[in-house]
Amino acid sequence: MATVIREPVPEYRFSRRALVQPSAIRELLRDASVPGMISLAGGMPQAQLFDIEGLREATLEAFRQVPRQALQYGPTEGQESLQRALAAHLSQRAIRVSPGSIQVTTGSQQALDLIARAFLDEGDRVALEVPTYLAAVQAFDLRGAQYLEIPAAADGAAVDTLEAALAADRLNPVPKLAYIVSNFGNPGGASLSVERRLALLRWAVARGVFLLEDDPYGDLRFRGHAPPPLWVLAQRMPGAAAWCGYVSSLSKIVAPGLRIGWMVLPPRVANTVTRIKQALDLHTSSLAQEIAARYLLSGKLERRLDAVRRTYAAQCDALCAALHDRLHDEITFSVPDGGMFLWCRFRECVDTAVLLAHAREHGVIFVPGAVFYPRGGDPATLRLSFSTCSADELREGVRRLKLALCSYRERAIATIVPVSKRCP
Amino acid sequence: MATVIREPVPEYRFSRRALVQPSAIRELLRDASVPGMISLAGGMPQAQLFDIEGLREATLEAFRQVPRQALQYGPTEGQESLQRALAAHLSQRAIRVSPGSIQVTTGSQQALDLIARAFLDEGDRVALEVPTYLAAVQAFDLRGAQYLEIPAAADGAAVDTLEAALAADRLNPVPKLAYIVSNFGNPGGASLSVERRLALLRWAVARGVFLLEDDPYGDLRFRGHAPPPLWVLAQRMPGAAAWCGYVSSLSKIVAPGLRIGWMVLPPRVANTVTRIKQALDLHTSSLAQEIAARYLLSGKLERRLDAVRRTYAAQCDALCAALHDRLHDEITFSVPDGGMFLWCRFRECVDTAVLLAHAREHGVIFVPGAVFYPRGGDPATLRLSFSTCSADELREGVRRLKLALCSYRERAIATIVPVSKRCP
Repeated sequence: MATVIREPVPEYRFSRRALVQPSAIRELLRDASVPGMISLAGGMPQAQLFDIEGLREATLEAFRQVPRQALQYGPTEGQESLQRALAAHLSQRAIRVSPGSIQVTTGSQQALDLIARAFLDEGDRVALEVPTYLAAVQAFDLRGAQYLEIPAAADGAAVDTLEAALAADRLNPVPKLAYIVSNFGNPGGASLSVERRLALLRWAVARGVFLLEDDPYGDLRFRGHAPPPLWVLAQRMPGAAAWCGYVSSLSKIVAPGLRIGWMVLPPRVANTVTRIKQALDLHTSSLAQEIAARYLLSGKLERRLDAVRRTYAAQCDALCAALHDRLHDEITFSVPDGGMFLWCRFRECVDTAVLLAHAREHGVIFVPGAVFYPRGGDPATLRLSFSTCSADELREGVRRLKLALCSYRERAIATIVPVSKRCP
Repeated sequence: MATVIREPVPEYRFSRRALVQPSAIRELLRDASVPGMISLAGGMPQAQLFDIEGLREATLEAFRQVPRQALQYGPTEGQESLQRALAAHLSQRAIRVSPGSIQVTTGSQQALDLIARAFLDEGDRVALEVPTYLAAVQAFDLRGAQYLEIPAAADGAAVDTLEAALAADRLNPVPKLAYIVSNFGNPGGASLSVERRLALLRWAVARGVFLLEDDPYGDLRFRGHAPPPLWVLAQRMPGAAAWCGYVSSLSKIVAPGLRIGWMVLPPRVANTVTRIKQALDLHTSSLAQEIAARYLLSGKLERRLDAVRRTYAAQCDALCAALHDRLHDEITFSVPDGGMFLWCRFRECVDTAVLLAHAREHGVIFVPGAVFYPRGGDPATLRLSFSTCSADELREGVRRLKLALCSYRERAIATIVPVSKRCP
């Protein structure tokens, strides 16, 4: 019999922050590929809505017009063609910037990492609404950030609580950064009111906090009127322009596979970020940028966006109706005006992390809400996505969720556990 | 007359390492676009050699075969198709790995950043050859790294000096990382001998240092026999496989605009790196990956590489012959066997940073060698690139360099400066 010699286990000397937690959602999404599973857990746009033909034509045009430029190294700031196309795109949203002041990034995730690296050292604080975008917390966690939490409700983050929170917490330094998803936040689905936008800006200027407005979903509004971006309000408020940056992405409106995001930043912050990006990936794919530029200039996006908004609105309505029909005694939620997510809370204490195990068995998954809080949060909350499932699938998903809730309750009663323990 | 109200200058609280120096080369390259300028300074592959038609076909195939997959979010590890294609590509270089053990990165620059973030905290040390790849130092600098320098010569880094350097420097910790470009280093042009590869591996294992082999130029060998990659040697040396990683890229052999790099890492390091990459950019462009996969599988790369090698060899020969004809009394250099760079040293003290100003006036630029040393280095050295200029341009560039040297010498004599000051 052959002897197996085991190699000694290597003792790697990893960096302090290397052992970041993997995204809970990422692990969860493995279940989404189980046959028959209805996933209300994902954060992906609907692939059936991608403008494949339009993007294919944009690609052929890039190969015809600028083949070598699209394949060669390019400037860290971004390809000029894309900077120009994005400036035109933004001007339709009242954001008037020169092309040269746009920093292209490898998806908006890289923008978050760049801002984190520009501002944060170990222990520095970030003010953010809770619940908040999980991957932003991951980028900030990698820098060893601490958080000043702003509770969020149906009308967005309660920014009027910021000074009180600082006063109650004098031992900790003033945050260096504030991070906010201004429209249809992930997971909360809420948008910040104009009053709150102005209050947040005033606070950032007064405290010298750099405010990053993340707006990947603003173009997915299917109801109501869009409040002006924080960035636009900042240009009109004395002293505020220097303290506000804007980040967005083509991932939710064109296609995530391009990995095209961008930032509009005040000049000194932009210079700092560009120098850091050089050490991160030199620049974003020139080919992807030249394709994106041509697609934006083709004028096909606005037509496509109409279709996306109509589809998401119908799916959102189907989900809301199903929740109302089957679970109205059980949960509360606000009806979203756009975006991809719906945020729910059970009226009575239900631990959605435990409920998820039952849901999985019944063929439906969602994301328990607690993962969207950096320091843990309300276990009775959950995030449901309506971007990828058809209306029928959403209705069936809610039916299964109801079954899962019954089996969760039966188990809780059957288990010999004091009632007090069942409601954390 | 209107009164201009100046806004107060904002006092940003940037992070400690945010103010990294911009790459000296990057600033220099702005001069490369001056009409008539001959640039021996660049580090770009020759765009005329890109296989535009082959890549266009690969793109159309991606749009035909997997349009939604190419445009949707994908796994952080990389698209399966590209992992498989890279495993096949690597097996031709005696690197036998399963597709799943390849981590795709956004260019090899991101691989360097990922490894820096996985291992380095402020003040941690990296052992690296000097002169070394500038952008690697930028990535390590962003982590606040310190360096243990290994002097490099024509046969690569003098790794036998490592223990003596450690002994002479007991106050500093043992490096956590060692970084080496194994073939045709940038800027040195040298390759590490097999004996030195083995010695470096033994040292890394004995000291628990993670050794990253960077090999973007290995496929650009136009003379001589390739030594086995450190990664291959590590698989055969007991205990070494866990301490060695391999990074390479399509930038020098296919096209940099795709931003496709990759790493082969031991399992626990790979897991750590994948989790970090998730917070950096979620994943590399799915579209670029699906294109790259199809191009690699088309079998067109090997034919294209033959053309690239023949062209670079002819250009390298032209540069060496011109240097020999015009400057053989002035400079020493080793004739490269591959890659894109030639490293020179003036026999008598010449400050190449000052010479560059004269060269610019004569219509030629190069990179002064001192920038490739993290702590500054020999001012009499310079890097010449032979990848992008034709043989005629290279000859003309050397003629101009000779004129610049004359004007440098005349200026030095004309200036009332003691002779001793002229030779730093």
